Amino acid sequence: MSRRRSRFLLKPVEPFTVESGLSADDVLSRMERVSFQGRNLATARRIWERMLASDATIFLGCAGALSAGGMRLILAHFIEQRYIDVLVSTGANLYHDLHETRGRRHFIGSPTLDDAALATERIDRVYDTLASEDEFCKNDEWIAAFVLKLERRPYTSREFLYKLGEHLWNETGNVGILTAAYRANVPIFCPAIADSSIGMGLSQGRHRDPQAGVIDVIGDIIESANLVIRRPSTATIVLGGGTPKNFINQASVQAEFYSEKVAGHKFAIQIVTDVPHFGGASGSSLEEAQSWGKLSLEAERVTVQADVSVALPLLATALETGARDLLPKRKRPDFDPSGRLLGLNGQSLADNRYEE
Amino acid sequence: MSRRRSRFLLKPVEPFTVESGLSADDVLSRMERVSFQGRNLATARRIWERMLASDATIFLGCAGALSAGGMRLILAHFIEQRYIDVLVSTGANLYHDLHETRGRRHFIGSPTLDDAALATERIDRVYDTLASEDEFCKNDEWIAAFVLKLERRPYTSREFLYKLGEHLWNETGNVGILTAAYRANVPIFCPAIADSSIGMGLSQGRHRDPQAGVIDVIGDIIESANLVIRRPSTATIVLGGGTPKNFINQASVQAEFYSEKVAGHKFAIQIVTDVPHFGGASGSSLEEAQSWGKLSLEAERVTVQADVSVALPLLATALETGARDLLPKRKRPDFDPSGRLLGLNGQSLADNRYEE
Amino acid sequence: MSRRRSRFLLKPVEPFTVESGLSADDVLSRMERVSFQGRNLATARRIWERMLASDATIFLGCAGALSAGGMRLILAHFIEQRYIDVLVSTGANLYHDLHETRGRRHFIGSPTLDDAALATERIDRVYDTLASEDEFCKNDEWIAAFVLKLERRPYTSREFLYKLGEHLWNETGNVGILTAAYRANVPIFCPAIADSSIGMGLSQGRHRDPQAGVIDVIGDIIESANLVIRRPSTATIVLGGGTPKNFINQASVQAEFYSEKVAGHKFAIQIVTDVPHFGGASGSSLEEAQSWGKLSLEAERVTVQADVSVALPLLATALETGARDLLPKRKRPDFDPSGRLLGLNGQSLADNRYEE
Amino acid sequence: MSRRRSRFLLKPVEPFTVESGLSADDVLSRMERVSFQGRNLATARRIWERMLASDATIFLGCAGALSAGGMRLILAHFIEQRYIDVLVSTGANLYHDLHETRGRRHFIGSPTLDDAALATERIDRVYDTLASEDEFCKNDEWIAAFVLKLERRPYTSREFLYKLGEHLWNETGNVGILTAAYRANVPIFCPAIADSSIGMGLSQGRHRDPQAGVIDVIGDIIESANLVIRRPSTATIVLGGGTPKNFINQASVQAEFYSEKVAGHKFAIQIVTDVPHFGGASGSSLEEAQSWGKLSLEAERVTVQADVSVALPLLATALETGARDLLPKRKRPDFDPSGRLLGLNGQSLADNRYEE
Repeated sequence: MSRRRSRFLLKPVEPFTVESGLSADDVLSRMERVSFQGRNLATARRIWERMLASDATIFLGCAGALSAGGMRLILAHFIEQRYIDVLVSTGANLYHDLHETRGRRHFIGSPTLDDAALATERIDRVYDTLASEDEFCKNDEWIAAFVLKLERRPYTSREFLYKLGEHLWNETGNVGILTAAYRANVPIFCPAIADSSIGMGLSQGRHRDPQAGVIDVIGDIIESANLVIRRPSTATIVLGGGTPKNFINQASVQAEFYSEKVAGHKFAIQIVTDVPHFGGASGSSLEEAQSWGKLSLEAERVTVQADVSVALPLLATALETGARDLLPKRKRPDFDPSGRLLGLNGQSLADNRYEE
Repeated sequence: MSRRRSRFLLKPVEPFTVESGLSADDVLSRMERVSFQGRNLATARRIWERMLASDATIFLGCAGALSAGGMRLILAHFIEQRYIDVLVSTGANLYHDLHETRGRRHFIGSPTLDDAALATERIDRVYDTLASEDEFCKNDEWIAAFVLKLERRPYTSREFLYKLGEHLWNETGNVGILTAAYRANVPIFCPAIADSSIGMGLSQGRHRDPQAGVIDVIGDIIESANLVIRRPSTATIVLGGGTPKNFINQASVQAEFYSEKVAGHKFAIQIVTDVPHFGGASGSSLEEAQSWGKLSLEAERVTVQADVSVALPLLATALETGARDLLPKRKRPDFDPSGRLLGLNGQSLADNRYEE
Repeated sequence: MSRRRSRFLLKPVEPFTVESGLSADDVLSRMERVSFQGRNLATARRIWERMLASDATIFLGCAGALSAGGMRLILAHFIEQRYIDVLVSTGANLYHDLHETRGRRHFIGSPTLDDAALATERIDRVYDTLASEDEFCKNDEWIAAFVLKLERRPYTSREFLYKLGEHLWNETGNVGILTAAYRANVPIFCPAIADSSIGMGLSQGRHRDPQAGVIDVIGDIIESANLVIRRPSTATIVLGGGTPKNFINQASVQAEFYSEKVAGHKFAIQIVTDVPHFGGASGSSLEEAQSWGKLSLEAERVTVQADVSVALPLLATALETGARDLLPKRKRPDFDPSGRLLGLNGQSLADNRYEE
Repeated sequence: MSRRRSRFLLKPVEPFTVESGLSADDVLSRMERVSFQGRNLATARRIWERMLASDATIFLGCAGALSAGGMRLILAHFIEQRYIDVLVSTGANLYHDLHETRGRRHFIGSPTLDDAALATERIDRVYDTLASEDEFCKNDEWIAAFVLKLERRPYTSREFLYKLGEHLWNETGNVGILTAAYRANVPIFCPAIADSSIGMGLSQGRHRDPQAGVIDVIGDIIESANLVIRRPSTATIVLGGGTPKNFINQASVQAEFYSEKVAGHKFAIQIVTDVPHFGGASGSSLEEAQSWGKLSLEAERVTVQADVSVALPLLATALETGARDLLPKRKRPDFDPSGRLLGLNGQSLADNRYEE
């Protein structure tokens, strides 16, 4: 062809070629040159690698039934190995993590089981996954008993969850999200803690002592924004959307009000199944986030439209295979989440005023 | 045909017939005998009517960008006319309501606008809808100033939002969700208030006074469950899923722990775009909810898979046309949400212990 | 505010206000100023009105189980009243239409019925809708018998479906899609006829006579493109995506190869539930269609992400209420679909060569 | 716990554990005990293995933009290695395969490119993927020229596509879907060939010679059903839904009319993004298919709700790693697709009558 190629037609799609014994790392590498969500998933890995090589503090937000669905040890691994620095979670993911860390299990079921029969046997269903309601009730009591051991003062969800992880570790010695975060000093925020079984456990603690079970979620807002203000840059990884997605973005927006140097997250990955066109936050696009200043206009970013249970095992394995070397060199924050105020690199972050 | 009809083939689909001038009520009535989500939407109306004719206390949960997207006066109408008794909302829906009640507007945009240009002009985009970030900042300050007028003690989100609605009504005299709820004595719960601009406003109040802006979301859990315990039966209407969906269900589950007579919501409608098969709560089926006891095994129920902005105008208009007569006869609860404790039919509901 | 409004913030969202007795027309009019898919549905009505007021030949494509699901008389109404000029359909929609025009019914079922029990009773399920397999088998035989009445030569799907509608009308005198199209001289194309029970009926005709049941689908391609070439402009309305969506677009692309004046459809509406991000044609955006020249770069267009069974009753009723006056003034094509060649305004369109 | 475990709680979820260097095979194996779509994808591999170990003839249906999106060599691999026996495809997948086999490319783009600019440069966009329209036009001409080399008689799509693959192989010697199928004697059916650029090429052949380009799609129906009648059992693998999904099921239903021993496919896998609740065929459940007799009531089956571009690379690699040994032992059919009638194990299948 004598005609010059269009400026648009520069990089060909490379059809994926099948080969026996390929590693997950290789599979994902070959997916970089396919199309649609396969390419996006492969791109997510590369952006995560660039996060690790940068000075960004990495927030990971997780919603959906990830823990019940077998993803909790991947999250624990990210925490332990410091693929991430801060976790923002729904209460459910922490609760189902606690359930397994305490030695209980979720079970393989099916979405077509008879829910009346399940109700009769006191079994709770999450799509194709089952658990014992009696065991859940015992978790609630365990949490309530723990709540009564705490001081009678407000705790941010971050401080509360640190103590919960500590207690869980001391009692079980088992690996999970909460215990890994405790041991790795990774702070966990849970802005919607009141909408979860952890919240129910807290309320049962208060039922026994009217002064117990006070969570200061407004303090979490200030602490998370101060954290953004203090760090040179930030990155967001969202699994499933929900309150964690917005909370991580809100920290950036709020930080910007009090510090001129904050200008939105520098990197963004989201793996979601929601779509933008109904206007909800879970499915909202990363471009929309730029209009709000949640994301930098130059942010490297990718949305992967996929179920986390399909995408995450491949992504996590590929990262662990190809990106491990980046971990020791990371310019990561050093937290102390054990106290009323969150320690960051030897200083405390206020929970009652914004500080540049 | 001599053969007897199968027991399965009893009620034929009636094709929808077009007619000039049909009312919304007629359109929805004719949709009762079509298939798929059209039939489900028509069924939702009938179930809502049966809720109104029953002794059920009706919870409505709303997530997604309903207020920004032009649905807030439908919600205000439901509150004023007592199509519902209790609202559970995300912070965003209340914040965008406050924005318009304060005389500001959202604007018609497009999902393909240039977000860099919007960011430069400080305009925030929600899919195809726009608003001024400067006006949002002023809302935040307005909320912060209001927070400083409150006592220096914890408020449940329910009490806080009542006071906020009161202040908003006194200042503006405008109709909206918050002001309608204030005037109609309809309690509003916002379990994830920390994940919203209302939470940001609260945090800015605390920034000015470290004792201000304390929200007791655990108290909300207890109060909402005590409400379920006290009422003869309950119903849930969910628009969009999210934290409100689970919070309403959790109130029922929590109530059951402390009262043998509670046995799940008696009626359930959900209008959602999420799907069950990824395991998330927003899309979870009403049958799954029965396994948990969130819904009664006999609950009349329907899931409508549709965008609320398409479904709700038709549904609300049809209800107002055909079901108004049911409103004066309702056996509805009589709330006093003005105090630290929620009043219900002349008694107070505890926020620190479960009471049968 | 002294600052000038941004150029982006010109047209405010108008919250929908509920009113007793509102017509479907009014409801849809009020939805024009809300957001998300509600606004898009209201916009679809306005674009359809502009189609009717223009010189465009209007193609409507329908996929999904619209006929089984109670939408067939809306389509028949569009045909009879000439809200549309050409129908492109899947075989299934025509087959289920034929089923009901022949006096059989579809029945109200549920998605949770026991499919083994249904199979035993020879009942076929389409999500929440049921029908008798024995009746379907009789339809197949009825079609096969009709096929044997035809000449032993290839028929385009368009000619075949005209004859089928004629036969059906003569035998039943009942209104439906096929009979309405026969009586209104509206051509129907069915490019994927081999993938449907109509195709199965044709194959059973051939089983009885090896010379019978020959459908010339390549002739359909040429005929449809020649139709586009001859008309001053064209418009596309897509319900559900599938082969009809692409076939209508393909007619435009193919026409462009042979006529310089063809430049893509001038108007486009699609009501779909598929999404663009998996790369499939059903969910592809109207903007993407512009890159191909399927749509004019100036095309007025809207995508409505909604189930047709929710959106179409409202849309059709509003059109019939507010847009009827446009029908008599339409500059519509005058077809004769009765012969081997399709007549258009007194001339024949070739099916074996492209003609400018 | 002394209480016996519920019969429902037998098999615990095993959280996925991350490990460096894991093969795709290992990753998918560990996904068997997680939940949601990850588990379903892992199950799909096991069911495919059981297909290979059985006496089933394996149909694979593919819709969506798989070839343009980099999946075509996976399909070619399945054909070459006889992971499948019969392909049913949309025209688009075969056309984009032909494009690349002819040495042209698709290119990496983005969904946010300016479609007006693309149109001006004659570049066609498929979501995030681009191609040259001029090259597409040359493909069309190439197909038209090939059509004129054929006899002036009807061809089933199966015979036509065999000849097309042969011609393509002879001219290019390149691997692709069409050329692999030619070389491996795997028949390809394309029931909706009229709705694709291959159909457009055929129509351009006829434009040059009015006797050329006749495709007998009704013959395809009979041939595919006779194939089902002759084989001991059948299996279906569906990627993306669309006409191939139904065509494969229809072959089974049609075969049942003429042979008592046919009783629905014995195995079924579908990887789709559509959902059941709008009633369309692409998203319809495998249980629904059982009510029709498309699937055996005992069929092993799984639906994976995922984008093929995410799921297929992992699935294909795992199969190639772990299931290769099953291939030489397969009880597979031996086809001769080169003639007017399809040869199967030394006999011919009629295309004009159903034969038990």
